[in-house]
Amino acid sequence: MDIKKNVMTALEELRKKNPLVHNITNYVTVNDCANAILAIGASPIMADDINEVADITSISSAVVINIGTLNKNTISSILEAGKKANELGIPVVFDPVGAGASTLRNDTTTEIIEKIKLSIIRGNLSEISFIAGLEVSTKGVDSSEADSKNDAVSIAKSVAKKLNCVVAITGEVDIITDGETLIKIKNGHKMLSMVTGTGCMSTALAGSFAGATSDYLTAAVAGILSMGISGEISFENYGKVGTGSFHIAIIDALSNLNPEIIRDRALLEIS
Amino acid sequence: MDIKKNVMTALEELRKKNPLVHNITNYVTVNDCANAILAIGASPIMADDINEVADITSISSAVVINIGTLNKNTISSILEAGKKANELGIPVVFDPVGAGASTLRNDTTTEIIEKIKLSIIRGNLSEISFIAGLEVSTKGVDSSEADSKNDAVSIAKSVAKKLNCVVAITGEVDIITDGETLIKIKNGHKMLSMVTGTGCMSTALAGSFAGATSDYLTAAVAGILSMGISGEISFENYGKVGTGSFHIAIIDALSNLNPEIIRDRALLEIS
Amino acid sequence: MDIKKNVMTALEELRKKNPLVHNITNYVTVNDCANAILAIGASPIMADDINEVADITSISSAVVINIGTLNKNTISSILEAGKKANELGIPVVFDPVGAGASTLRNDTTTEIIEKIKLSIIRGNLSEISFIAGLEVSTKGVDSSEADSKNDAVSIAKSVAKKLNCVVAITGEVDIITDGETLIKIKNGHKMLSMVTGTGCMSTALAGSFAGATSDYLTAAVAGILSMGISGEISFENYGKVGTGSFHIAIIDALSNLNPEIIRDRALLEIS
Repeated sequence: MDIKKNVMTALEELRKKNPLVHNITNYVTVNDCANAILAIGASPIMADDINEVADITSISSAVVINIGTLNKNTISSILEAGKKANELGIPVVFDPVGAGASTLRNDTTTEIIEKIKLSIIRGNLSEISFIAGLEVSTKGVDSSEADSKNDAVSIAKSVAKKLNCVVAITGEVDIITDGETLIKIKNGHKMLSMVTGTGCMSTALAGSFAGATSDYLTAAVAGILSMGISGEISFENYGKVGTGSFHIAIIDALSNLNPEIIRDRALLEIS
Repeated sequence: MDIKKNVMTALEELRKKNPLVHNITNYVTVNDCANAILAIGASPIMADDINEVADITSISSAVVINIGTLNKNTISSILEAGKKANELGIPVVFDPVGAGASTLRNDTTTEIIEKIKLSIIRGNLSEISFIAGLEVSTKGVDSSEADSKNDAVSIAKSVAKKLNCVVAITGEVDIITDGETLIKIKNGHKMLSMVTGTGCMSTALAGSFAGATSDYLTAAVAGILSMGISGEISFENYGKVGTGSFHIAIIDALSNLNPEIIRDRALLEIS
Repeated sequence: MDIKKNVMTALEELRKKNPLVHNITNYVTVNDCANAILAIGASPIMADDINEVADITSISSAVVINIGTLNKNTISSILEAGKKANELGIPVVFDPVGAGASTLRNDTTTEIIEKIKLSIIRGNLSEISFIAGLEVSTKGVDSSEADSKNDAVSIAKSVAKKLNCVVAITGEVDIITDGETLIKIKNGHKMLSMVTGTGCMSTALAGSFAGATSDYLTAAVAGILSMGISGEISFENYGKVGTGSFHIAIIDALSNLNPEIIRDRALLEIS
């Protein structure tokens, strides 16, 4: 598999299809997520009321769920949107923001995993580790690797196998796997952690790609790689100016991203 | 009527009066709306709890209603604010974001139109077309033009007559009418559609002008024209840089807008 | 007391400790608050559901409460977070946005003051004046100065004594007092009032410092001074460009702030 080529093709597909991405997300980074989705070439719609989520999901090409400012009213909306998406074969991308930090987030994460067939989960190591530790009864394969949680790769693989979905753990090196193939991304810059929402945007970008290709491993890699490369370009141009300008320049770089930039910059390892 | 002159005067009035604009809006673009309102010279206040909307409307010069992330709790707040505004003669400006896309948005749009006397409605062609298709019993004149929905101009005119308010359909050419006079604006740039919230900001700007002048046709034109001109200026300076910088430069241009810039750049047609 | 030295030390402490700051805040300026908290060197977490606020407060070093878009669901969350913070000795910083403007905000402000032991209150003159006028039964010292509300200094001092906390009234000259010591800050720029959220960010910054030092007078001064100096630097570089660029450059300046800049620029008076 030539993953770099796949990502380049996925970007072209995304820009041709301009998929509508339904986001149920947090109110902190929602504007950045909408602008990142537009910058990459998709269209965002945010809707979280129980009385309309099914309608909105029905007209969308992907659903992105982010529990960054989880609210009890939204939980039933998430489940409803997920149910509708599963019925219609629309991919669901999940960002378990803060899983592990409160009972509400833990319980909601557990419920989402049990009730919704997810296509991609993206989180940091502690969030995905929380999921790896869950004793959930799912439709996925129960992996013996669930016990060997000694490193990010085996955690990601075990969750991917157990839930039969693509799992991404982002960090200094990003790890993305469908349980078999493993991709490592060495792009990005540590300044990305100085701006709120870069993780949420990565997930929203993965959702944008998932709305344009049914190869969800490629979609997850493409979303996270797009953010990593954009962070690098932004840092080169504005890293010295400050985190405000760096933040804006990430969106600039996303809007200028093209297959050639991916070809020249992507630092991908496949195994 | 010299509409360009009217807009120039309205901007001077707005900056003199610094009207308070009460927004019940969505959480995606709310920060941009607040900053656009400040940039043009008005003052924003956001409040959507049923227990305070009447209080906040009472101290405001205009109310802006935007259903971009509609929530069942907010619907009663919208109706309460609208009722209070109508009682006090405060203009209500409505942005029916996504009308047509879900039953909740459709029903809410219908209820708003039936229960609130609106001063200005601004939307895209599909949103205003949805309103044109409604069989609502309103206090306005029922127009025979409601049947000739073959183009944006007749749709806008029919809604304006039916609801006795100013209607704006924004697009490549913006159409604004009070049912009689028709104004076309040829300003703006297609890159505006690459940033979330430029429509919401146009509505918020129309609301800002409506807080400073009781000539709501001028207010609507002024709000939409301000965004169009600012988009052009921003594109000239930052269009090549990316959508992030373009976004910020729109606010810059709004804050620098003055009657001379309007005189030199406004592309208005009146008929 | 060498307040300038204290602020310089507090900034170093903050960057060493990277405190987690729990925000229950409004949806207008929340992204800016999160990025300001990151820029100064702390970590933001936003959580407002009643089912998780106690959990989140428990892992945080400070709680910031802002009633800018107050919502009846959030009131109980505020009280719960405040109760937990008081139990654990975690400082609570309060921004009574719009106190005086609606019954809901007035009643909530009163309830917060009666039920939560606050460490810092930051507001503008009218907000703090509203609090000064309350006949609340609190644990603090009831000051005879409560009657001499003829100027900002005596209002701030009376509230500080009555509630036994640090009170900051921001304006052209910022006034910060613990009821005894009075600090005036002459930094800042009037363009800060042209961007939404600069007050909210000041409060969030005060909360960030309060998460790193138990000297809350210094924390309040440090937070407000950081915003004032950053506003000046931003104005020098981008004031002529417009309010959009000025807004972003405030975050840039916060992220570049260091003890030397504070030493060279701080205009502090102590009495």
